[in-house]
Amino acid sequence: MSEFDFNNNSHRRYNPLLDSWILVSPHRTQRPWQGQQEKASTDSLASYDPKCYLCPGNARMTGEQNPRYESTYYFVNDFAAVKLDQPDYVTPEADKENIKNRLFKVQGTKGTCFVICFSPKHNVTLPVMSVPDIRVVINTWTDLYLKLQAETPFKYMQIFENKGASMGCSNPHPHCQVWCTENVPTEPAKEFSSLRSYSAEHDSCLLCDYLSVESAEKSRIVIENDSFVALVPFWAVWPFETMILAKSHVASLPSFSEIQKNDLASIVKTLTTKYDNLFLTSFPYSMGLHQAPIHPVGDEYELAHFHMHFYPPLLRGATVRKFLVGYELLAEPQRDLTAEQAADRLRTLDDVHYSEK
Amino acid sequence: MSEFDFNNNSHRRYNPLLDSWILVSPHRTQRPWQGQQEKASTDSLASYDPKCYLCPGNARMTGEQNPRYESTYYFVNDFAAVKLDQPDYVTPEADKENIKNRLFKVQGTKGTCFVICFSPKHNVTLPVMSVPDIRVVINTWTDLYLKLQAETPFKYMQIFENKGASMGCSNPHPHCQVWCTENVPTEPAKEFSSLRSYSAEHDSCLLCDYLSVESAEKSRIVIENDSFVALVPFWAVWPFETMILAKSHVASLPSFSEIQKNDLASIVKTLTTKYDNLFLTSFPYSMGLHQAPIHPVGDEYELAHFHMHFYPPLLRGATVRKFLVGYELLAEPQRDLTAEQAADRLRTLDDVHYSEK
Ligand SMILES: O=P(O)(O)O[C@H]1O[C@H](CO)[C@@H](O)[C@H](O)[C@H]1O
Ligand SMILES: O=P(O)(O)O[C@H]1O[C@H](CO)[C@@H](O)[C@H](O)[C@H]1O
Repeated sequence: MSEFDFNNNSHRRYNPLLDSWILVSPHRTQRPWQGQQEKASTDSLASYDPKCYLCPGNARMTGEQNPRYESTYYFVNDFAAVKLDQPDYVTPEADKENIKNRLFKVQGTKGTCFVICFSPKHNVTLPVMSVPDIRVVINTWTDLYLKLQAETPFKYMQIFENKGASMGCSNPHPHCQVWCTENVPTEPAKEFSSLRSYSAEHDSCLLCDYLSVESAEKSRIVIENDSFVALVPFWAVWPFETMILAKSHVASLPSFSEIQKNDLASIVKTLTTKYDNLFLTSFPYSMGLHQAPIHPVGDEYELAHFHMHFYPPLLRGATVRKFLVGYELLAEPQRDLTAEQAADRLRTLDDVHYSEK
Repeated sequence: MSEFDFNNNSHRRYNPLLDSWILVSPHRTQRPWQGQQEKASTDSLASYDPKCYLCPGNARMTGEQNPRYESTYYFVNDFAAVKLDQPDYVTPEADKENIKNRLFKVQGTKGTCFVICFSPKHNVTLPVMSVPDIRVVINTWTDLYLKLQAETPFKYMQIFENKGASMGCSNPHPHCQVWCTENVPTEPAKEFSSLRSYSAEHDSCLLCDYLSVESAEKSRIVIENDSFVALVPFWAVWPFETMILAKSHVASLPSFSEIQKNDLASIVKTLTTKYDNLFLTSFPYSMGLHQAPIHPVGDEYELAHFHMHFYPPLLRGATVRKFLVGYELLAEPQRDLTAEQAADRLRTLDDVHYSEK
């Protein structure tokens, strides 16, 4: 029989960071689509919207008024998922007689949530902001990291952005969120556990080793600069999923040099520009930063290797998305085009935003 | 300080079946929604659609023609994610010198995929089908299980239904899919691993024990009959997520009695009717069956406890869904209303479909 063909034969790829598998069906890229069409984003927003609760000077849903801010601006989320203060709770330790306590485990969770507006302008997005302006966003992330470290007892701070209506974003004003909790949440906790086992077994960092292979192979790298690489992970789930990986083993934002932070701003701009250029639309995604807990214990600081994940849903054009539904929810994530094909597409796209040409 | 209030204080709940946590923020149910509106499903379809590639007698996308079937009908998926035959592949065993093989694990995967039409009628759904007609669907699932067991070397058969455009379904003709693969996929594999540890530690079935607690508490049970319970799991992620659980420890469809299969048809009808009655719309969801592999090895048959998961996205009305996006993808699933509140809502709804009143 002929040789195994990664571009044509179904296979599973392993994600060593989350210790999970995904199913790749590359021959399926030609499948026609007759299902739900996404609304393509229209780029005709005004720079100020009197009805936007994030624009400078406007009233928020709670009635509070935003200042006339001129750069980034953050405030405590009016509908925070966790709160600073509430009674403590932990399920009593299970004893074998008590099936309920054994199976119904609960932890009360305190914390705090913020909204960070990237810009006073209602109609910009990261790819059309300047590198210095994105740098201000990165400074704000860093400041908030240090502030929460100094002023709260909480453990982990998750920065994330939902961009586009199809990714649950309810307001196009450019913003991200920060949810800070008493515990390391599931996904980063899984990553720490994988980094820990890998380090114990190989005396080395999983992500440093991974990067060394990717740098040699080049086929999944989209773009790089002195400090960062943006690549489609070998085990990507979303069609054009990427990861921005620090080239050196740096734990968290405050540990980066000024040059590295400029390089981060620059690679974020170029990657998101390529995204927009792919289907000539403001590309929806959820993205977020994974780094050391603000209050690390044990080996957590040492293990952490700063990276960002981008999870964009679009598959084939501005209106056709990938649904991670039935088989994905019940059995295993599945993708059609390969990581290498996705990286190829992104790599060859222009670095200049289509709106600026 | 006052007592911990499960209906008002943020907490994490543990899912012992998947060994994971979810964040519950019950005070957040009042959050207004200004984001994407789903299209409410319109119930005005004809019973035959000349353009539908699943209707009897019509041509499929490949040009093949469906027979004039009169009950359920299944065929091999024209765009199957896995195929019967391809070369084999497994990443060579890692040795410590070779970082690439250590981090880039791949398995070739053969298998087969089917589409099962529930009915020749284009405009029905499970809740408006009769119990005997749903019983025929269950018979078809059982027959296919036995057929794939007898005729293929494959290991696991995943039955799932994507219902509604917002759950990636591209054709409203009532149908489900079956993906059958050489391996147990991620989600059932995690469940087997949890069932195995629990059984080793407590000499008992996790789901039998779980059911005994739920039956005593009643607060999360939506409906039950002699053979099955439909409940909102304590650790539910989707707003109105449910699980149909066999009351006895039965491994898979072929092991059920005729009476049990009738009871399964009946509880599927009532549960999905309640779903439709919740927001007076054809309720979207992804659902699927978890049971023993068709070719179990070791303890897998003994461990398996038949159940179905329903993952419906709607949150507050026919057009407002829950998005599992930024925080959920990067950190941890989050929900607003509690499992108990969701179960209460569903329990009190009528068992008669709103269209039949
Ligand atoms: O095969 P279908 O129904 O066209 O496709 C649907 O279900 C599949 C299995 O859950 C998903 O991978 C697809 O993204 C979804 O659109
Ligand atoms: O807080 P927002 O932006 O209104 O809400 C959005 O992001 C949250 C965190 O990812 C999700 O839980 C919500 O479902 C989503 O709509």
